[in-house]
Amino acid sequence: MATTTHSSGARAPVLIATAITLGLLGAAGAQAQAGSSVQLFGLMDIGVQALKASGTDTRYLVNSDGNTSSRFGVRGTEDLGGGLKVGFWLESAVSVDDGTSGATSTNNKDSVSGGLTWGRRATVQVSGPWGELRLGRDYVPSFGNLTTSMHPFGTNGVGSSGIMFYPVPANGTTARTNVRASNSIGYFTPSGVNGFYGHAMLALGEQGAGPTRKDGQLTGVRIGWRNEALNTSAAISKTRYATGDYTQSNVGMSYKWGPARLMALWGRNEVGITRTTATMLGTQWEVWPQGELRFAYTWLKARNVASDATHIAIGYVHDLSKRTALYTNLAKVDNKGRGTRFNVGLATTQPGGDSGGFEAGVRHSF
Amino acid sequence: MATTTHSSGARAPVLIATAITLGLLGAAGAQAQAGSSVQLFGLMDIGVQALKASGTDTRYLVNSDGNTSSRFGVRGTEDLGGGLKVGFWLESAVSVDDGTSGATSTNNKDSVSGGLTWGRRATVQVSGPWGELRLGRDYVPSFGNLTTSMHPFGTNGVGSSGIMFYPVPANGTTARTNVRASNSIGYFTPSGVNGFYGHAMLALGEQGAGPTRKDGQLTGVRIGWRNEALNTSAAISKTRYATGDYTQSNVGMSYKWGPARLMALWGRNEVGITRTTATMLGTQWEVWPQGELRFAYTWLKARNVASDATHIAIGYVHDLSKRTALYTNLAKVDNKGRGTRFNVGLATTQPGGDSGGFEAGVRHSF
Amino acid sequence: MATTTHSSGARAPVLIATAITLGLLGAAGAQAQAGSSVQLFGLMDIGVQALKASGTDTRYLVNSDGNTSSRFGVRGTEDLGGGLKVGFWLESAVSVDDGTSGATSTNNKDSVSGGLTWGRRATVQVSGPWGELRLGRDYVPSFGNLTTSMHPFGTNGVGSSGIMFYPVPANGTTARTNVRASNSIGYFTPSGVNGFYGHAMLALGEQGAGPTRKDGQLTGVRIGWRNEALNTSAAISKTRYATGDYTQSNVGMSYKWGPARLMALWGRNEVGITRTTATMLGTQWEVWPQGELRFAYTWLKARNVASDATHIAIGYVHDLSKRTALYTNLAKVDNKGRGTRFNVGLATTQPGGDSGGFEAGVRHSF
Repeated sequence: MATTTHSSGARAPVLIATAITLGLLGAAGAQAQAGSSVQLFGLMDIGVQALKASGTDTRYLVNSDGNTSSRFGVRGTEDLGGGLKVGFWLESAVSVDDGTSGATSTNNKDSVSGGLTWGRRATVQVSGPWGELRLGRDYVPSFGNLTTSMHPFGTNGVGSSGIMFYPVPANGTTARTNVRASNSIGYFTPSGVNGFYGHAMLALGEQGAGPTRKDGQLTGVRIGWRNEALNTSAAISKTRYATGDYTQSNVGMSYKWGPARLMALWGRNEVGITRTTATMLGTQWEVWPQGELRFAYTWLKARNVASDATHIAIGYVHDLSKRTALYTNLAKVDNKGRGTRFNVGLATTQPGGDSGGFEAGVRHSF
Repeated sequence: MATTTHSSGARAPVLIATAITLGLLGAAGAQAQAGSSVQLFGLMDIGVQALKASGTDTRYLVNSDGNTSSRFGVRGTEDLGGGLKVGFWLESAVSVDDGTSGATSTNNKDSVSGGLTWGRRATVQVSGPWGELRLGRDYVPSFGNLTTSMHPFGTNGVGSSGIMFYPVPANGTTARTNVRASNSIGYFTPSGVNGFYGHAMLALGEQGAGPTRKDGQLTGVRIGWRNEALNTSAAISKTRYATGDYTQSNVGMSYKWGPARLMALWGRNEVGITRTTATMLGTQWEVWPQGELRFAYTWLKARNVASDATHIAIGYVHDLSKRTALYTNLAKVDNKGRGTRFNVGLATTQPGGDSGGFEAGVRHSF
Repeated sequence: MATTTHSSGARAPVLIATAITLGLLGAAGAQAQAGSSVQLFGLMDIGVQALKASGTDTRYLVNSDGNTSSRFGVRGTEDLGGGLKVGFWLESAVSVDDGTSGATSTNNKDSVSGGLTWGRRATVQVSGPWGELRLGRDYVPSFGNLTTSMHPFGTNGVGSSGIMFYPVPANGTTARTNVRASNSIGYFTPSGVNGFYGHAMLALGEQGAGPTRKDGQLTGVRIGWRNEALNTSAAISKTRYATGDYTQSNVGMSYKWGPARLMALWGRNEVGITRTTATMLGTQWEVWPQGELRFAYTWLKARNVASDATHIAIGYVHDLSKRTALYTNLAKVDNKGRGTRFNVGLATTQPGGDSGGFEAGVRHSF
């Protein structure tokens, strides 16, 4: 299933009541169908963090998601026969440090929060030999390259330079479509056809009538190719906003070279007349079967917004089991000018200042 | 169990851990009890919608609930022996298009939202040969006639004229008790006693002291009779509000005639001095084992609020399996005057204008 | 596991998919490990309540949690071998009467609500022969003595005098750490070492830079000892607030004497210059195998805030099964002065007035 290439982080789902669901199918007739399933799943990642910005005290945090985004969800598939499957997916964010959940957006423009929403993913999907059609809230195509498949740290923890591949907040719009979009119609190509894969999406902003009625409407596409050693992909997503259209484009590459996976990522974010362009070189290096070293260096060029900046990070992930890992990250951001600044996590930097961060935590999935 | 007559839409629950729960009973003693169960259940319905109102552009939406209300929940029962059972039910709404959940009300007057609430149902129920006692948040008796048991489209999608059987928003009160009530004590008659069924409810508003201390207090009753072919029922619910009491009354009838189920529904909503009365004639017609055509025509008379209006709809539901169906609906609303207007879904009509809508989607339950 | 001593109320968890999880372990290698598990669990408690305060009408409520706090959660453990275990816990509050969920706090100072949060508990824990390390949102050490282990009614229902062991709201700070803290690092001693048990916690407020950067930071410790008959424990938690530090200290004792469990609890809450000190004497008395009588008398001394007051309560809990119980409580509060008043539940008292309350309900766990 194409799905797995779009998830960040390992999941070891717990299968619920397969036997009983099979019983249901039995009641529906003696058809020769593969089993259906409903899965309760999740991942919890929590650690301690120390952040230091020039001119301020060191700040200590108990923080979620230093390695992978915490989540809680329910998902399942039903085999309809003839190669046709239907599935659903409900996934919410979890902040393990305080029990809150993440926000979502009903119009791809404004944020909705305050309690648990299935803001990480809420979809029904129908799949067949022709690929998969997916409706609901989901990752946008151009987020696919920002995960751990193309960036050693993905978009989590102080080690991640993900914020440099996201748009710099501008024009007062906070819930951009740089990660996910609501009201989306997505299509995924069938997996395993000569190594090619693709994802196209149309997501509606669902504004009312008038000149801003297409605010929040996204169109995006991602095309990639992979084999045992190489994985490369390019993507672009464009969202219409009355305050200035937003375009996210990126190209990623990952190459397995002995125990190391070498990664390169280029990404550009344009919001109205502003533009930031980031380039990352990094690696995930399997130092022994349970341990992986991570390193990434990112440099960013800014135009009409923010300042040029660099981000350097080193990390280590140690698997205690298939479902549980310990991790630690160390990172530093240098801001070249006095514009809007990039920071390590929640560090608050003085104008022109730099920041550094360290964290250690545990990730556990179910 | 009386429960099933009050649920709208098919549910194919997934049974969790029956064996283990039986183990618990075993630990409690070697009593000859029927098995207990906890079920994770849900339904996801998502489609695309086109809406056109006179004088405006066509509006496109990715929309939930065109056929049945999406939901996620947990429920279970425990057999206490001697015919006595205790159960619980936690059910939340889900907007599959954006991952948000529905609102609830703590006082049957004001709305509480912002994240997942168990606003569709949150009850503990005790049942025996004498019927069922149910405490918590639940459907009001007069909603029972508005579901697909008496209306071909129930209260979902552009095909539904449910909004004509609801009160017209007036006096600034938005979270009326036309569907559910919190703080309720409900009683259901035992099922299968000569075909008769009944539901009575008292729900408290839980205001503080003073003259408005009974704001939001509902009393309601529903009485019906059914056999293989006929199902008919009448209901009334009255809620006290300082801004004007609210009364919802309705009578429904459904008759199976060959492959068709003929339906008639009459309903009245009174809020203070305002009154709307709607009448619907319609059918669900099984054109072949997997396919059902739906048709409904509704006309509304208004007094002191809104305008007279009509709603006409045709739809088709195609079952892919016991758990999954495709559907499509087409509908049109004509408003006769320039008062508050009725619309097809989220279409926004000009004063005196009309609107039409089309949608197609997939419904999947677990 | 040390966990059980810190939970209030009985839980009969439903085990999900043990067999499948074992399958996962099998895939990870042929290690001789104990089974892992994921559990869906919860408890629903709902009843009717009548409250009477001097000078006001009797107020009727359908109310949650007269006996035990309602909850919904998911939790699990994974055995890593060598005595090492890792687990997670996600638990939210549930108001069965209206389907809302409880609040949480991201900084141990301000409240976050509006929908489901895992505000009752959200942790990842690692345990071994050396004890248990727990990160996330959890009970503070000084709450451990306020549960049904040391108070006949715990902190639920009109029978509870728990509010007298909590700080009187002062200085505009509402989300104090008298029950739980977010961003916590907790340590529990191994259970069963000569009867001693202990719990230490550091929880961060995670404010930004500046003089209030430690607002909401809690440090706490609890030390206890128990055998078959006796359980005694002392605890203290201190939280820093710019508006005045908060200290909660208490000592509890429970002694099993024939069919009765005699309980004594002393607790003090200090917020800035204010101080309240409460003492409770009570009993849980097993009148027959399914039935338990409860009685508690509490007197409170106040300084610089509120008034002296007393609380007296009698209750009865009747088990219908291991998972289900009926209960009833009757209580009265006398306020000695005209300061901030203590009330029975949601009763609203006139200055210097008293209040009484009665409730009856059903508790069901899954």
